[in-house]
Amino acid sequence: MSTVETTISYAADNKQRYLGELIAFLRIPSISALSDHKQDINDAARWVSSQLRDIGVASVEVIATEGHPIVYGSLINPGEQLPTILVYGHYDVQPIDPLDEWQSAPFNPHIRGDNIYARGATDMKAQIVALLKAVEAVIRTSQLPVNLKFLFEGEEEIGSPSLGAFISENKELLDCDFCLNLDAGILAPDVPSIMYALRGLAYFEIHLQGPSADLHSGKFGGAIENPALVLCELIAGMRDKQGCVTLPGFYDQVQPLTKEQLREISELPQTNEWWLEQSGANALRQDDQYNPTARATARPALDVNGIVSGFTGEGSKTVLPAQAMAKISMRLVPNQTPEGVRKNLDDYLAINLPATVKLELIEMHGCVPSVMNRESPAVQAARYSLETVFGKPPLFTRDGGSVPVVGLIQELLGADTLLLGFGLPDDNPHAPNEKQHLPTFFRGIETYIYFLNELAGFMR
Amino acid sequence: MSTVETTISYAADNKQRYLGELIAFLRIPSISALSDHKQDINDAARWVSSQLRDIGVASVEVIATEGHPIVYGSLINPGEQLPTILVYGHYDVQPIDPLDEWQSAPFNPHIRGDNIYARGATDMKAQIVALLKAVEAVIRTSQLPVNLKFLFEGEEEIGSPSLGAFISENKELLDCDFCLNLDAGILAPDVPSIMYALRGLAYFEIHLQGPSADLHSGKFGGAIENPALVLCELIAGMRDKQGCVTLPGFYDQVQPLTKEQLREISELPQTNEWWLEQSGANALRQDDQYNPTARATARPALDVNGIVSGFTGEGSKTVLPAQAMAKISMRLVPNQTPEGVRKNLDDYLAINLPATVKLELIEMHGCVPSVMNRESPAVQAARYSLETVFGKPPLFTRDGGSVPVVGLIQELLGADTLLLGFGLPDDNPHAPNEKQHLPTFFRGIETYIYFLNELAGFMR
Repeated sequence: MSTVETTISYAADNKQRYLGELIAFLRIPSISALSDHKQDINDAARWVSSQLRDIGVASVEVIATEGHPIVYGSLINPGEQLPTILVYGHYDVQPIDPLDEWQSAPFNPHIRGDNIYARGATDMKAQIVALLKAVEAVIRTSQLPVNLKFLFEGEEEIGSPSLGAFISENKELLDCDFCLNLDAGILAPDVPSIMYALRGLAYFEIHLQGPSADLHSGKFGGAIENPALVLCELIAGMRDKQGCVTLPGFYDQVQPLTKEQLREISELPQTNEWWLEQSGANALRQDDQYNPTARATARPALDVNGIVSGFTGEGSKTVLPAQAMAKISMRLVPNQTPEGVRKNLDDYLAINLPATVKLELIEMHGCVPSVMNRESPAVQAARYSLETVFGKPPLFTRDGGSVPVVGLIQELLGADTLLLGFGLPDDNPHAPNEKQHLPTFFRGIETYIYFLNELAGFMR
Repeated sequence: MSTVETTISYAADNKQRYLGELIAFLRIPSISALSDHKQDINDAARWVSSQLRDIGVASVEVIATEGHPIVYGSLINPGEQLPTILVYGHYDVQPIDPLDEWQSAPFNPHIRGDNIYARGATDMKAQIVALLKAVEAVIRTSQLPVNLKFLFEGEEEIGSPSLGAFISENKELLDCDFCLNLDAGILAPDVPSIMYALRGLAYFEIHLQGPSADLHSGKFGGAIENPALVLCELIAGMRDKQGCVTLPGFYDQVQPLTKEQLREISELPQTNEWWLEQSGANALRQDDQYNPTARATARPALDVNGIVSGFTGEGSKTVLPAQAMAKISMRLVPNQTPEGVRKNLDDYLAINLPATVKLELIEMHGCVPSVMNRESPAVQAARYSLETVFGKPPLFTRDGGSVPVVGLIQELLGADTLLLGFGLPDDNPHAPNEKQHLPTFFRGIETYIYFLNELAGFMR
């Protein structure tokens, strides 16, 4: 057997133990958003750090932050000039509500068919365990041909409030050739894929004040402006009938998709029917030349994330509301920036805001879009490893969401990120009945083994 | 002293007791919209019935309905052919939210300056107490020269669902020369007025369903339609830049205002500045040839009374909402009808609803607009009484609100309604810090005393 075959064989022999370790990790209810899970968060951090030690990472620290601790570990071979990978993951999970929609208890992992059901299964404890078990298998059976640094945080599901400061203060410690972010997935069990682009985000709150207090809509309606109606008009004016965003200059920085990019997107397996099924929507918009996959991943979008004004309880209160508020977010593509679209929004409001209401615009948060260089050694090694394990070359996908840590690491460490993980689109992250597909988990371990073995070759 | 002077003097001597009785009534949190206030509603009904008995109304009943009880009383002098007045009021009040905007607890009446602050103060417990105290004063000091029937309901603020059936089933019991509806006001403490016209109302809830569950706006935004955005577009499309309602056919039945009506409205003391001051708005719309008073009282209007969708709490949750809901109401003028504008709305939605969302349209409640005969004895007696107490003749006004019971009583009993009450425009009905101006309350008692005394003379 070749070296890698020995390693793969070792991993195959240890599948039951690996599964047992995943189950132990999933049993820890490490919900970062809820303060009464503080002890569970600490237990999860300890679990990760002891796993790192068990697999042979000598230098491991659990580092306190203003919030939940960061687990850092490193495995450096000082004798050789090996590529250095910074492995990123998060050991915290989402809250579990609505609990009554779960078919089995969220922290009592339950295997049904090919899937294991538990909160945090796909997002992202299975991905962490898969990588750690791949590292273990390589260490046990041969020589690790890369340097590894591990950065596991416990605050990803609450917006990573401590991570930026930690990275800023530890730039040397975290210095790397690139970041391997495990918080990712593939398109289907038999459709390997690499996500090479993420949209950015700009999130705002628009507050309008009309009258100084809620008024009777009978006494004042018609004479006094209704801020809810103005808010609806402002929001409606932000896109045209074709679904294009009408903020002045919004598309000026948008890099047009190339024919090659459009062809690649059109060949992805996400059909119109898939989008309808995934969303449960009645019908798709029939807007422009882009298909839904392009519109959700490679084109900018504007959404109302929340809106509230006036009386929303039961019955028919005849109120003319004093205030109206909407949360509006925009998904950005290269080369848009949160600052740029903020200016577009400011310009729009300057033109369209009537004198009858007062505006407060709050910038909530933002991050830039990111695109990986697909010719980089990391992407090439990932492509090779996926093709070897899954028997077909990976598709290249873009994701419509944002992964703020990718931008942070680019900005603070100057390092690109490779997203490589083994969730599936129907794994219900952030929802009831979250799961991980176990055959894909085990293939993930194999893929990481090939990746760790072959990376150095692609870097030469 | 003349008879009426004796009565007025009796009322003056009893002001402190009257105020105490008003406070006791205001302490009862008789919110009809909330089921956990059922006991309070019953307490308020009992309070009214025992007041009626205390002032000398021998025949009083608290009558159960499908909803909240109706208090009925009568004081008939069988020996003489006296005019019969049906006194109408409601003992229920609006909900109190937003509670944090109240300067004193809504059911702990608090006197600041000339005003008493409490939910239900102006709308309309002070008006009920004023009339009852006037009746008491007349009974205690002379002979009541009219027959009185009292009809007090507990469901006005939820659209009077039981009143129509009650009136239908008790036409003989309620037979009268006219209805004196106490749920009214005057323009200012020194500007008596009689409201001779009311707008109608048509109130709807629009529910839109987009995806079957809330989605991640990053993963789906751009591909899957956002029902909150669609709702904003639908609402924005309901009026044009001039503020005119764009529902097809909306103005077809609107009776144009005559030159005389427009002149009368233009001579009312409600200037643009007054509207700004009353509302606390930043500026007035600059729409058309109508002044704000005409727009608020004699022209139709469309308002958003409430809207909600998605995430409205603190922070920036990136949700693409599954649902969006708005409460929309229209104020109607002669000869519009709720059925007519329902059809206009249906037609609008049929044209403009996109296939991407599912609609549920709920008709909440409606009533027709109404206009009184200004030459009737009831109006003439009211004009005389107001002029006597306030020292100047009343102005004739229209109100932008709706009083559904006016239409009901016209339709079922064939009786006109005189609206005579002593709220003020800045009393914050339906809003935080609702109040009643106490000097106006006491003048109200005097006005009712004159009215009860003098009505028979105008009817001959």
